Amino acid sequence: MTIESTVLSLDNPVFAAYVLAASVMLLKLLLQPWMTVIRMMKVRAGFRSPEDAKQSPLNPAPVSGQLEPNEYVERSRRMNLNDLESIPAFLVAGLLFVLVGPPLLLAEVLFWTYVLARAAHFVAYATAQLHDVRATFWTFSSLSIIAMVLYTLYQVLTR
Amino acid sequence: MTIESTVLSLDNPVFAAYVLAASVMLLKLLLQPWMTVIRMMKVRAGFRSPEDAKQSPLNPAPVSGQLEPNEYVERSRRMNLNDLESIPAFLVAGLLFVLVGPPLLLAEVLFWTYVLARAAHFVAYATAQLHDVRATFWTFSSLSIIAMVLYTLYQVLTR
Amino acid sequence: MTIESTVLSLDNPVFAAYVLAASVMLLKLLLQPWMTVIRMMKVRAGFRSPEDAKQSPLNPAPVSGQLEPNEYVERSRRMNLNDLESIPAFLVAGLLFVLVGPPLLLAEVLFWTYVLARAAHFVAYATAQLHDVRATFWTFSSLSIIAMVLYTLYQVLTR
Repeated sequence: MTIESTVLSLDNPVFAAYVLAASVMLLKLLLQPWMTVIRMMKVRAGFRSPEDAKQSPLNPAPVSGQLEPNEYVERSRRMNLNDLESIPAFLVAGLLFVLVGPPLLLAEVLFWTYVLARAAHFVAYATAQLHDVRATFWTFSSLSIIAMVLYTLYQVLTR
Repeated sequence: MTIESTVLSLDNPVFAAYVLAASVMLLKLLLQPWMTVIRMMKVRAGFRSPEDAKQSPLNPAPVSGQLEPNEYVERSRRMNLNDLESIPAFLVAGLLFVLVGPPLLLAEVLFWTYVLARAAHFVAYATAQLHDVRATFWTFSSLSIIAMVLYTLYQVLTR
Repeated sequence: MTIESTVLSLDNPVFAAYVLAASVMLLKLLLQPWMTVIRMMKVRAGFRSPEDAKQSPLNPAPVSGQLEPNEYVERSRRMNLNDLESIPAFLVAGLLFVLVGPPLLLAEVLFWTYVLARAAHFVAYATAQLHDVRATFWTFSSLSIIAMVLYTLYQVLTR
């Protein structure tokens, strides 16, 4: 193992800031399916596969219609799909951005704009706020990743 | 190029374990759409775009209903969507976990718990086992990624 | 910070080639949802959440049916889902491939085969070309990632 610190070490404050933001967003990505599970168990509906309507310890008293879409469950699935369109891109774009050596302040501003915008988007989506509110937070999250990619692209094109 | 070994070198057994598990999971992620393709070709149904119902070398004898959802094909699509909710998170969480320097044994246990749980989940889903069986394997896969993220978060918060 | 160059530095031409291709693909991944947004605004239809049909500055004159699937909008959503099945895999597979030290020429061929195949796939999908045309480009993109993963797997298994 190399002894001196490298870019991808927690001694590098830009990398440490990234790891913190990335870990928070990974938890968000990983916990959203659990919200879907909890909602499905609560309403005992919104299942997707034919076999899920069978009697089992998790579904002791099957009723008809359990395979129909259920808005309470579907909302959590849409939130999950929205995460899939955004969080993996953030995770990879953030890592490449760290590797081209951005200023710490710029990195912190972009990472935390993203995390806060996604947190606000989550609340707006879960509580069914007006589309425009959700769209505004989504825009901030999208633009902060695009800014990281453009910075990275500029660095590689002018190296 | 630096000559001494670094964390992200195959000389680091934790990284090598990650690269092996990650490569297996990448193949899983990349082959699932091929399973959808093979199923679509087999039943000549379950297409999604209007133009897919047109006559072509791959669809020489169009019949009506080819654009309707087909459970045999949809099952593979749901398996793919389930992969998308899990595998990219594993790939990034695993890499960050390697970068904060976990013990080799812990890394191997978490990586292989994930790979085995996903393999079992694939079999349970493809053969339409009771929901509870599939859910159990899914839970192991989800918890092993969450454990990696929590370890990473602890390292960055206590650095 | 370490001074000598490492594998993950823009001084490494394989890494620089990866960062360029990855940035282009990240922009593609991030801009596809904007295409969905633009299409939704243009036809004022194809919304997904019940609250999106309410009156608001972005939806000043609600009409019934705005929550029904709209093919013009759904096409962009399917393109986005197709991106999700492919681009995150490319981003991670490409990075691991760089880390196991492939020849520059092989890396450039695989990265640019992927980027060009996805660009052609985008055009074929957006303009609703025959399924076989889209499928051909998709196959090139899929095989180029699979090749990277197999190369990586070979390196880790024969280390």
